[in-house]
Amino acid sequence: MDAPFLLQDTTTLLGLLAYAELSTQMRLAIDASRGSNPTYRLLQADLSAAAYERMGHITDYINELGVDGRAQMLEFNNAFDEYEQRTKAETWHERVLKGYVGHAVALDFCRVVIQSLPAEVHDRVAKSLDSTAEADAAALILDEATATDSVLKSRLALWGRRLVGEALNQIQSLVFAYPALERLVQNSAREQGVDIASANEADARQMTTSWLLSQLTADHARRMDRIGLAS
Amino acid sequence: MDAPFLLQDTTTLLGLLAYAELSTQMRLAIDASRGSNPTYRLLQADLSAAAYERMGHITDYINELGVDGRAQMLEFNNAFDEYEQRTKAETWHERVLKGYVGHAVALDFCRVVIQSLPAEVHDRVAKSLDSTAEADAAALILDEATATDSVLKSRLALWGRRLVGEALNQIQSLVFAYPALERLVQNSAREQGVDIASANEADARQMTTSWLLSQLTADHARRMDRIGLAS
Repeated sequence: MDAPFLLQDTTTLLGLLAYAELSTQMRLAIDASRGSNPTYRLLQADLSAAAYERMGHITDYINELGVDGRAQMLEFNNAFDEYEQRTKAETWHERVLKGYVGHAVALDFCRVVIQSLPAEVHDRVAKSLDSTAEADAAALILDEATATDSVLKSRLALWGRRLVGEALNQIQSLVFAYPALERLVQNSAREQGVDIASANEADARQMTTSWLLSQLTADHARRMDRIGLAS
Repeated sequence: MDAPFLLQDTTTLLGLLAYAELSTQMRLAIDASRGSNPTYRLLQADLSAAAYERMGHITDYINELGVDGRAQMLEFNNAFDEYEQRTKAETWHERVLKGYVGHAVALDFCRVVIQSLPAEVHDRVAKSLDSTAEADAAALILDEATATDSVLKSRLALWGRRLVGEALNQIQSLVFAYPALERLVQNSAREQGVDIASANEADARQMTTSWLLSQLTADHARRMDRIGLAS
């Protein structure tokens, strides 16, 4: 940790990632409780427990860095409520897509900005950043539902476009609310060749935000392709 | 396993117990997601994960007994829906009490009927039967809420009385729906001195049901005392 703010920035980001896992634990358990197919219910219960376990790995790591991991995570308590409240799912499949998109965008954000931190940080939370089990489950469930129902398929594609807009808004709000996150975004943008050195503060903010959103949008498009929904 | 039906009766009961843990996992995650106090949210997330772990111990044990543990558990998929649908909680505290009462009555049932099975069966699932963590958490949360609010306190006491009635109904429905469970109840009743040997089938059923409900009601009363609510 060789730069000012680096430890604080790191633990803040890790706190957000841990909270994303906690939210995932809760969300998947709710999906399971509302589902009707017992195989999917159990799959989501399994994934809920796995998210809790990953949360524990992250808070342990934050503890090792000398900061109270659970307290750091709970700084983000309700951090995704805006997204949650602005996107009321009307069906179970809409809920599944909503959870998948929201979580994936949050993870993408963490992946993008963690690049500016020492490789060790990435490695210690690789389980959270690289896990595909949840995406696989969402793809399985949504593929099955849309395979023979083209009306549902277009409705979910539309819903996905709405969701990603709200998810990106949510991420922007978080970045503006937490200076540590904004520093990380700027560092990552700079490392990726975004020339903000000579820009004033407002311009730098705008440039890095545009850069961040372009990254996250590209990731989202790939994800929608994967589950066969037009993005 | 030295009596006819004993293996099937055992795995059926274990399946119900496992499903009670799965339901608890889901329910506590929902409570956590709807809560506002971050400490309680995290406590409930912890307890949710612990319930999932205990579920795994039980399904592993069923596997050892030569029956597919997860399939056996899923025979009880939606087994508590009647209770769920007939008791719509209007506040978060009502939800907490509802979950606590429903789960406790289901556990009490398992404790009562497991007495007629070999001690090994009890020992292997003692973690589920003896865990007080969830009861402690519910007591903590409800005590805090009612300590300075006598109106809430009487409302919750009333709610608790309603809940236990519905929970006992639910257990009765399950016992009548699963011959394996009914055999276990009769065995337990007989071992506890209920004289059904000379009774006809209808009378025997009524006698064992009364005996079972008296056991479960007594347990419930002790539980309400513990959290300071009149039962």
